[in-house]
Amino acid sequence: MKRKPLGHMNCSIAQTLDVVGDPWTLLIVRDALFGTTRFDDFRRSLGIPRATLATRLDTLVEHGVMERRRYHERPERHEYVLTDKGRDLRRVMISLLQWGDTWSDLDPPPVTLVDLGTDEAIEPVYIDARTGRPLADLRVGRRFNN
Amino acid sequence: MKRKPLGHMNCSIAQTLDVVGDPWTLLIVRDALFGTTRFDDFRRSLGIPRATLATRLDTLVEHGVMERRRYHERPERHEYVLTDKGRDLRRVMISLLQWGDTWSDLDPPPVTLVDLGTDEAIEPVYIDARTGRPLADLRVGRRFNN
Repeated sequence: MKRKPLGHMNCSIAQTLDVVGDPWTLLIVRDALFGTTRFDDFRRSLGIPRATLATRLDTLVEHGVMERRRYHERPERHEYVLTDKGRDLRRVMISLLQWGDTWSDLDPPPVTLVDLGTDEAIEPVYIDARTGRPLADLRVGRRFNN
Repeated sequence: MKRKPLGHMNCSIAQTLDVVGDPWTLLIVRDALFGTTRFDDFRRSLGIPRATLATRLDTLVEHGVMERRRYHERPERHEYVLTDKGRDLRRVMISLLQWGDTWSDLDPPPVTLVDLGTDEAIEPVYIDARTGRPLADLRVGRRFNN
C-alpha cells in the first residue's frame, strides 16, 4: 500500500519527507554523498534486498535526486549519481549524523567528517547568517507566510 | 511487522533513523518543537489516526525523546514534552525545512523561521566552527574511527 503523500500539508518539511522520509532512502543518499554510485556497492554497504534497493533508486531518480547513467554497454550497466538537488541533502545527513553522535551509544562516533581540501576534521555548526549567532543560542519560532 | 533496526550498522545516521526515521514521527517532533504538547492538538495538526499517533508518541517516550506528563487529574490527561534529546532534533528539522524550501514547489515557502528574542527572520547556515567557512564551500568526506 502506498502511503498518502504528506505534501498536501503546505509544509516544506512534509514535502521533504515525501521524498526522503524513509530510512533506506536516506541511507542510500548517505552512501551516495560519500561516493558510492553502483548498484552492487549500495547493496553490499546496506545489506538491502535487491528489489528494495531497485525501488528506492527508481524513486530517487523519479524525484530528481539521482540520475541514472550507463557506464558500460555490454552487459549494460548503470550507475546512480546525485544531482544538485541530491547533493543538497548533505545538510540533512550531517544533522542526522550529529544527533546520532550526541545521543546514541556509539562511542567514539564511528565517523569524523573531514574537509577533503585540507584533510582536517570539521565541526559543523548551524548559525544565523544574518547575525553570526549559533542557532543553539536562540529560541527559534516560525512565522506563517500564507 | 517491525522493521529490523538499522543501528547494527555502526553508523550514527542509521541509529538516528531507528528513532526518527519515520515521517509521522518527524512531523510530531516538528509540531512539538513549535510548542504543541497535547494529544488532540497533534492529532488535529497532523490529521493522523489516533492509534498511529498513540504508537508514535509511545515510541518517542521510550526513546527518551519526549516525556509524558500528567496535566489534569480527573479526567486524567497527559501532555507530551520534548526532552533535551528531543529538542536537539531542531537541527534535523531545520535541515529538512531548508531542503523543502529550496526544492519543493511551495512558493513562497510557507514558513519563515524567526528568532523569538528579536522577532527577526533567521537564515540558518551550516559552517565549520573551526574555520568559520560555510560547509557549502567545502568538499566533505569522512574518516572512520574504528
